[in-house]
Amino acid sequence: MIRIIMNGCNGKMGQVISQIVRDDGETEIVAGIDIVDCRDNGYPVFTDITKCDVEADVIIDFSSAKAVDTLLDYCEEKKIPAVVCTTGLSAEQTARIGELSGKIPVLRSANMSLGVNVLLKLLQDAAKVLAPAGFDMEIVEKHHKHKVDAPSGTALVMADSLNEALGNEYTYTYDRSQVRQERDPREIGISAVRGGNIVGEHEVIFAGVDEVIEFKHTAYSKAIFGNGAVQAAKFLAGKPAGFYNMSDVIASQC
Amino acid sequence: MIRIIMNGCNGKMGQVISQIVRDDGETEIVAGIDIVDCRDNGYPVFTDITKCDVEADVIIDFSSAKAVDTLLDYCEEKKIPAVVCTTGLSAEQTARIGELSGKIPVLRSANMSLGVNVLLKLLQDAAKVLAPAGFDMEIVEKHHKHKVDAPSGTALVMADSLNEALGNEYTYTYDRSQVRQERDPREIGISAVRGGNIVGEHEVIFAGVDEVIEFKHTAYSKAIFGNGAVQAAKFLAGKPAGFYNMSDVIASQC
Amino acid sequence: MIRIIMNGCNGKMGQVISQIVRDDGETEIVAGIDIVDCRDNGYPVFTDITKCDVEADVIIDFSSAKAVDTLLDYCEEKKIPAVVCTTGLSAEQTARIGELSGKIPVLRSANMSLGVNVLLKLLQDAAKVLAPAGFDMEIVEKHHKHKVDAPSGTALVMADSLNEALGNEYTYTYDRSQVRQERDPREIGISAVRGGNIVGEHEVIFAGVDEVIEFKHTAYSKAIFGNGAVQAAKFLAGKPAGFYNMSDVIASQC
Amino acid sequence: MIRIIMNGCNGKMGQVISQIVRDDGETEIVAGIDIVDCRDNGYPVFTDITKCDVEADVIIDFSSAKAVDTLLDYCEEKKIPAVVCTTGLSAEQTARIGELSGKIPVLRSANMSLGVNVLLKLLQDAAKVLAPAGFDMEIVEKHHKHKVDAPSGTALVMADSLNEALGNEYTYTYDRSQVRQERDPREIGISAVRGGNIVGEHEVIFAGVDEVIEFKHTAYSKAIFGNGAVQAAKFLAGKPAGFYNMSDVIASQC
Repeated sequence: MIRIIMNGCNGKMGQVISQIVRDDGETEIVAGIDIVDCRDNGYPVFTDITKCDVEADVIIDFSSAKAVDTLLDYCEEKKIPAVVCTTGLSAEQTARIGELSGKIPVLRSANMSLGVNVLLKLLQDAAKVLAPAGFDMEIVEKHHKHKVDAPSGTALVMADSLNEALGNEYTYTYDRSQVRQERDPREIGISAVRGGNIVGEHEVIFAGVDEVIEFKHTAYSKAIFGNGAVQAAKFLAGKPAGFYNMSDVIASQC
Repeated sequence: MIRIIMNGCNGKMGQVISQIVRDDGETEIVAGIDIVDCRDNGYPVFTDITKCDVEADVIIDFSSAKAVDTLLDYCEEKKIPAVVCTTGLSAEQTARIGELSGKIPVLRSANMSLGVNVLLKLLQDAAKVLAPAGFDMEIVEKHHKHKVDAPSGTALVMADSLNEALGNEYTYTYDRSQVRQERDPREIGISAVRGGNIVGEHEVIFAGVDEVIEFKHTAYSKAIFGNGAVQAAKFLAGKPAGFYNMSDVIASQC
Repeated sequence: MIRIIMNGCNGKMGQVISQIVRDDGETEIVAGIDIVDCRDNGYPVFTDITKCDVEADVIIDFSSAKAVDTLLDYCEEKKIPAVVCTTGLSAEQTARIGELSGKIPVLRSANMSLGVNVLLKLLQDAAKVLAPAGFDMEIVEKHHKHKVDAPSGTALVMADSLNEALGNEYTYTYDRSQVRQERDPREIGISAVRGGNIVGEHEVIFAGVDEVIEFKHTAYSKAIFGNGAVQAAKFLAGKPAGFYNMSDVIASQC
Repeated sequence: MIRIIMNGCNGKMGQVISQIVRDDGETEIVAGIDIVDCRDNGYPVFTDITKCDVEADVIIDFSSAKAVDTLLDYCEEKKIPAVVCTTGLSAEQTARIGELSGKIPVLRSANMSLGVNVLLKLLQDAAKVLAPAGFDMEIVEKHHKHKVDAPSGTALVMADSLNEALGNEYTYTYDRSQVRQERDPREIGISAVRGGNIVGEHEVIFAGVDEVIEFKHTAYSKAIFGNGAVQAAKFLAGKPAGFYNMSDVIASQC
């Protein structure tokens, strides 16, 4: 049983993770930290992290940027591995995490979704075989009507993964309506669909001669980051000091 | 049994239609016309249309632009309804067809595929209900890597159908990567994917609050135009003089 | 501006509808009814429906079976049109609604989702054209791992719609693994996929010669019933007495 | 430049491979073998394999079971690596290939499609990470209306791959309509859709909490086996004696 301290336990993601752990069987939350202690989570909640004296194997952090400094102090002092999922950290905080990873294991990733990270790895494997065999690569992503940027950050990370696996020789194309010419074999087309309140879909297409392979990830809510965080916690407990990310978690399971 | 004369019977589409009719049960080809008489089709073949004295209910034309003039002479003289599928006609030929439709029934359509034309009608019905209820509309089309134009003609016809059903208040968007702003409720996004030798896929997405409806047409070969032509022939036989298109065929069956 | 009374305004669906109406522009909630008055909805809330003296054009009911009797009394007395979305009604209540529809307009439907009901109508139109042209029809539905029945009720309603449009000559096939024979042209295959917490996907496939048309509905939450209810309310306000369902709402907009 | 002898060069697959090689740039066909020599392929054609004295690095065989014996004699004598794609071999022929692989490199696979074989590998990688994280696995395959067996052989190979990666603890479910119970976490649902002339689609679904990952392979023609054969030939040229299959080809490129 891997013992977890949940930093930010009464926030949206903290509650999602509490539920995932209750259903998991291999992990348990032994303590929570939050500025408010408003409900019965089935584990003790500390409003001041420095007061938390519960022994644990790993800490998951889904709090706020301003709560991260005391978290890092705590992890350093207690020598406890940390899965840091809070976003919007300052450059100083990021640098501090880098230093800290010399002393304790720390995991941090651009996207905590297990599914997206599995896909990123598989896409590289697929690209290495299919691109040399003449398959063209295209990405279509779909998001809600309020999203102002396009393509999505995850679509670009996917394109970069494909590109990296192939020696970074590809360019990205976002609009084919202004030219009348065949696609370049060394291009990756990226299309952005917007509408309704679609949470997020990413489809990567490998189109060859008479066969097409599609990889599609559909997110139904942001709760998917919680599942990835629990996997990361299981991975990180007991590891040596170092800086890890979700691709290490995936690699350890293949 | 509807009796068909097949103009261009030994061409690719003529052979496709011959096979469709053999499997159909409600139609039969009673004569073929072609400049070559190279195989046994199970029906008489005339290399000179003026020599064809077989009685028929309708003629399907999949020949060549230069063969269309004698075809139209023949139809006018024999008072036989004509499904004209040959493309690349001159302005004179198109005008002649218009005149001819005052005397005999003539059917002609931008796209003879039954599936695409059914979809065009249903998309208008869907748009009239879903757009006022706040659904956003997007189109994604996929074609082979050699296609030089984007988006496809059929994708534009689909967008125009949606737009027409909604009072022509919509604009089309082909690229969202250059702006950082929410989509306009009065826009239809059109994305073009290119790769491999994909024959043609068209997907129309209605994205609302917590529900999405997708309509997708996939073509596996150009033979789909043959099926539409046979349906058109059944429709046209016995009709009064006039100019018809595939949407009339669809409407008659709803 | 269509004035709505929301029965069950503080329940999950009542709150969903309150939000939809706030964003709508053509409707307003002028009063709510609920056994609890626990929040500020921006409209007066009555815990006793008989005390509600606010004038309205239509009432939407998303309450509980036991609250429906007083609702029906109220609608009869006030002559107010009613969209009854509450499920689990007794046979007596259903019969009472039938009688009541002789005096006031009442709307009730198996599935209040606008998208599903639009699709049901379009599927019938599609079937009438495509089935006679040789297209085979198949349904694939996907739901969460906890769903105990298969196929889903909505998949069966879709199959029945297709079948009805074609003279009820079709049978349904749920398993092809036990036979080694070609599909019957007069069968509709229905497949049920189960996994994760998928809310609900329904895909209807028309497969012809070299072309396939797919219609797909994806639900992301049960909130979609709220959107349908608001559309129904707009439709019902001002109608003559009678019994209506969602297909009438759709038909009025085509 | 890898030099290929094409056994069965004037058959359908032989012609497909000839075209692929012409477009490839890294391979060339230096001789063809066929019982008929009916066209100009741009390379010499021998109607008797024993007369072929052209030097080559590898031979691709897409002929007929009865032509395979002389092919194997030839490969053994010339010490030339062989990609044997001909199906319907006798037990004796299969055994002979096994023996021969002690002397020369031989490659043979149930399915020569590069795409399907890439997918088989990736599915195992995905299963090892996603199944322990609680994702449910389901397969949907679609084929033409004339296919008498269900599910398809490839769907079963996919299920077996998933199962093998997970310790062979899973059972397969083909029909959920006869029971009213939740899916077993240790089951893989397999659904078979039949209609029109669909060549072959295979979709593997990993459904988790709030996210779904789908892997889909679509075949547009049997020509896809040709592309795989050329990849296999490139892989096999220069290898030591042994028995290889398509998963070795994939593994060498990852």
